[in-house]
Amino acid sequence: MTGYMITFEGGEGAGKSTQARLLYNTLKEQNKKVLLTREPGGTKGAEAIREMLLFGGHQFSLRAEIMAHFTARCDHVDNVIKPALDQGYIVICDRYIDSTLAYQGYGLGQGDNSLIAYIQQLSGLIGVKPDLTLIFEAPYDVMLARCKARQGKVDRYERLDDAFHYRVLNGFQQILQDNPDRCILVDANKDLDSIHQDVCTIIVNKLPE
Amino acid sequence: MTGYMITFEGGEGAGKSTQARLLYNTLKEQNKKVLLTREPGGTKGAEAIREMLLFGGHQFSLRAEIMAHFTARCDHVDNVIKPALDQGYIVICDRYIDSTLAYQGYGLGQGDNSLIAYIQQLSGLIGVKPDLTLIFEAPYDVMLARCKARQGKVDRYERLDDAFHYRVLNGFQQILQDNPDRCILVDANKDLDSIHQDVCTIIVNKLPE
Repeated sequence: MTGYMITFEGGEGAGKSTQARLLYNTLKEQNKKVLLTREPGGTKGAEAIREMLLFGGHQFSLRAEIMAHFTARCDHVDNVIKPALDQGYIVICDRYIDSTLAYQGYGLGQGDNSLIAYIQQLSGLIGVKPDLTLIFEAPYDVMLARCKARQGKVDRYERLDDAFHYRVLNGFQQILQDNPDRCILVDANKDLDSIHQDVCTIIVNKLPE
Repeated sequence: MTGYMITFEGGEGAGKSTQARLLYNTLKEQNKKVLLTREPGGTKGAEAIREMLLFGGHQFSLRAEIMAHFTARCDHVDNVIKPALDQGYIVICDRYIDSTLAYQGYGLGQGDNSLIAYIQQLSGLIGVKPDLTLIFEAPYDVMLARCKARQGKVDRYERLDDAFHYRVLNGFQQILQDNPDRCILVDANKDLDSIHQDVCTIIVNKLPE
């Protein structure tokens, strides 16, 4: 693989989807080969799994729920991400493996060691790791206010309680500590343009020539 | 776990579902604690995945399709099979991991080594292995004639060509060779009662007291 994979991670309302789009536009303007995609989803099959998980009303075991996320991810990697990386694209992916670690591993699973190990083994099977991960963080009440301002249907993760969302945010902190070479914290408690400038500064320093 | 898990495996039309039901009835009459279940399916979430895979019309990558089967299996194991085994039940399961090996690994994947290894790693993650596997085999034309006599909708595996189904049957032969302690061949080219007698003879010798 000759491309470069950047993942955008963080809790709901951290602004990462907006920032992923802004970075995509900037790199496009610089005539870079760049692909913007997101999880869960990214292919028709993965979208069908996303619908089933977020709105299907089935009560999967937590291990099965995690494997379903990895199934969608596997399809996304095999059909979209890996072919793009093989062709030298910069791939920007809105959520990836760290979201499964934070939401299912630390949030729903409360950081249970065997569950974290299970997620890491599935990550190994998938085989494509990000080169760079930006973790967007803002105070919880700021992120909550941004979520409430949104339109659209509320999925089952968004409906979970504050304690769950605090565990998710702590999970992202843990991921940051565990992967200092790959992960960079982005202060998302700023206006859109300032955050975008910070992201561009990080990217300029990190992107291979 | 204190129970005992028996899986019934073989190609389409080998008669394993009928034989699984007959064995279940016989063990029930002997007042054994016995559970009959099947794959893909066995829980509501797993049934939703089964529908998506067999009739959904999505084109998953082969690795994703395999992981989707394991997701359904994981839910089935966590919610049905493992709890029953923990309570000392004999669990009879119509298709399990060997079907994924035969259909996806040897049939669709043509025995590719990295794909077989991938399936084995997923099997390890699931964590529950059968104690005994009966592999039902009859000549291909006999099995084909039985399939054609059936009612009901035809799924996407049944629609595949003869070469695929030959690879599946050879895959089951390979599994039998690779696992002589766990797997026993059942000659399914007989009448129902004779096959049932053969199955009962095997079970009597294998079941722990």
